[in-house]
Amino acid sequence: MAAAEGRRCVLGVDVGGTKIACGAVDERGAVLRLSEVGAPADDQEGMVDAIVGIIEETRSRCAADGFEVAAVGIGAAGYILSDEGVILEAPNIVWRMVPLRRIAAERTGLPVFLDNDANAAARGERLAGVARGVDDFVLLTLGTGIGGAICVGGRVYTGRRGTAAEMGHMVVEPSGTPCGCGQRGCLEAMASGTALEREGRRAMASDPGSLLAQMCGGDPDRLTGRMVSEAAGRGDSAARRAFESMTFYLGLGVVNLIHIFDPELVVLGGGVSRSGQALVDNVRRVVAERGVAALVAGTEVVLTGLETNSGVVGAAALAWEGIGALP
Amino acid sequence: MAAAEGRRCVLGVDVGGTKIACGAVDERGAVLRLSEVGAPADDQEGMVDAIVGIIEETRSRCAADGFEVAAVGIGAAGYILSDEGVILEAPNIVWRMVPLRRIAAERTGLPVFLDNDANAAARGERLAGVARGVDDFVLLTLGTGIGGAICVGGRVYTGRRGTAAEMGHMVVEPSGTPCGCGQRGCLEAMASGTALEREGRRAMASDPGSLLAQMCGGDPDRLTGRMVSEAAGRGDSAARRAFESMTFYLGLGVVNLIHIFDPELVVLGGGVSRSGQALVDNVRRVVAERGVAALVAGTEVVLTGLETNSGVVGAAALAWEGIGALP
Repeated sequence: MAAAEGRRCVLGVDVGGTKIACGAVDERGAVLRLSEVGAPADDQEGMVDAIVGIIEETRSRCAADGFEVAAVGIGAAGYILSDEGVILEAPNIVWRMVPLRRIAAERTGLPVFLDNDANAAARGERLAGVARGVDDFVLLTLGTGIGGAICVGGRVYTGRRGTAAEMGHMVVEPSGTPCGCGQRGCLEAMASGTALEREGRRAMASDPGSLLAQMCGGDPDRLTGRMVSEAAGRGDSAARRAFESMTFYLGLGVVNLIHIFDPELVVLGGGVSRSGQALVDNVRRVVAERGVAALVAGTEVVLTGLETNSGVVGAAALAWEGIGALP
Repeated sequence: MAAAEGRRCVLGVDVGGTKIACGAVDERGAVLRLSEVGAPADDQEGMVDAIVGIIEETRSRCAADGFEVAAVGIGAAGYILSDEGVILEAPNIVWRMVPLRRIAAERTGLPVFLDNDANAAARGERLAGVARGVDDFVLLTLGTGIGGAICVGGRVYTGRRGTAAEMGHMVVEPSGTPCGCGQRGCLEAMASGTALEREGRRAMASDPGSLLAQMCGGDPDRLTGRMVSEAAGRGDSAARRAFESMTFYLGLGVVNLIHIFDPELVVLGGGVSRSGQALVDNVRRVVAERGVAALVAGTEVVLTGLETNSGVVGAAALAWEGIGALP
């Protein structure tokens, strides 16, 4: 059962509210093996069991193929104390105060590292994405919510307790839409995939003849963020209003982050980033219009370099970094 | 002329739009000697000459008293490339692209270090203020404008080019008041001393019988931010409206910074911080109301620990750090 030739890999585990993915990943960020299971998000013990289970299963497959698993990285949505390896709380998953790092290490006998999904994604961009060789950058993951990560001097900055970089809860419109966090006008409330859908439904309601309305058969419940970006790209004015609103606030958030960090790059990842070039173009325009010219001059806004499996690659990069295998 | 006993000090130079102050400062942040001259802010060469002049003058006084000057730190308002020692541009002073560090080093023969005033102030708080022993904190200097500094892991973070931490130009109200930077709704436009005065004049205009109106003899041009805080403290409702508006936006800015940095402290300095406990109380209330509870829980909001000469002490801390004399 032992790894015959000592070809090393790590496991990257991407924990979401609907599925758990686990990949065996080499030192250059290539995914060698991949498995997925559904996430029992309403059952704290079930979540832990599912994570340990998929780690053990993938490790067995690796062993059979002659790979030795050196460590495990876990990236999960939520507020996480990364040094202690504890999940404080998470959206869409019931767990609270789960010492996942210790539990997984005890049950698998492997070194385990835990961080939130955005911090993991930033490490993935450095290992195998658009931030190779970049020491100072900021990353936003645009999905149902908005996550953030800060890389300073080549290290992911996690703050005093490990809960830094919650850029999704930067207030950009004080009297704006209520946010899932209980506050109002957060970047997440104004510029996430959820916000894009909300603005799409609003625009469609005021323009029932729009392409956007046709695309979802006039049923607001069937509307997706993807439809809004696509219809906007095809020139539909209702969809464009929604897309402009979302990208305006995203652009303001990016302006604020450039003014604060003076980074080399701002990386846009997560599902909404699949809106692609139009998203980047709009954000760049807002940055040019609303940023201080002397401050925003040298910062590039770019899309993620990790199209698929970015969560798994990011979690794996966390593991490689954890065992000191990255420069 | 040589320092007889080798008692070492550094010079801290605080460069503003109206005056230049230079102090001889020891390793614990105590000011040993202090001089001031007016700033010829409309004359780039005159500014440089005045800075070199006050350095030489203070150095002579130090030599006469048996102190050896080991280095010079200069803190100046404006956008500064700290590593290169170049002032890009500044509000209220005409200079642009001035390689002040090199010029001052050549003309004085001393090691010279340059950073913006807020970054210098953060170093001063670590040397002799409220941030002694604190590795992770954020500082806002509240004056005519708003400056910011970020201390991460015990080091002041200056970004890729040295222009980071421009928190004054974080947009907190997208459709808010125009800002001096050319943008709109920046923290500086909503929560600086200038904003406090503007809101005070507005409140006074709608309530000519207010205490605030009495305090400035009904003349809006005589109104100061200090009057607004004082009248608010005495319960004047016009002044309170102005003070609440300013502290609301300041509080939102602080919320955003806590969510982004998870710092141990947020330090409020600059002239407006002399509003004192009422300012801190209001900001803390906004943080409690508008912050995500799990994220803002452990961060303290405090006033600067450097009452007077904070600019000089901060610039001196920069010099001590520059020559490697601080831990």
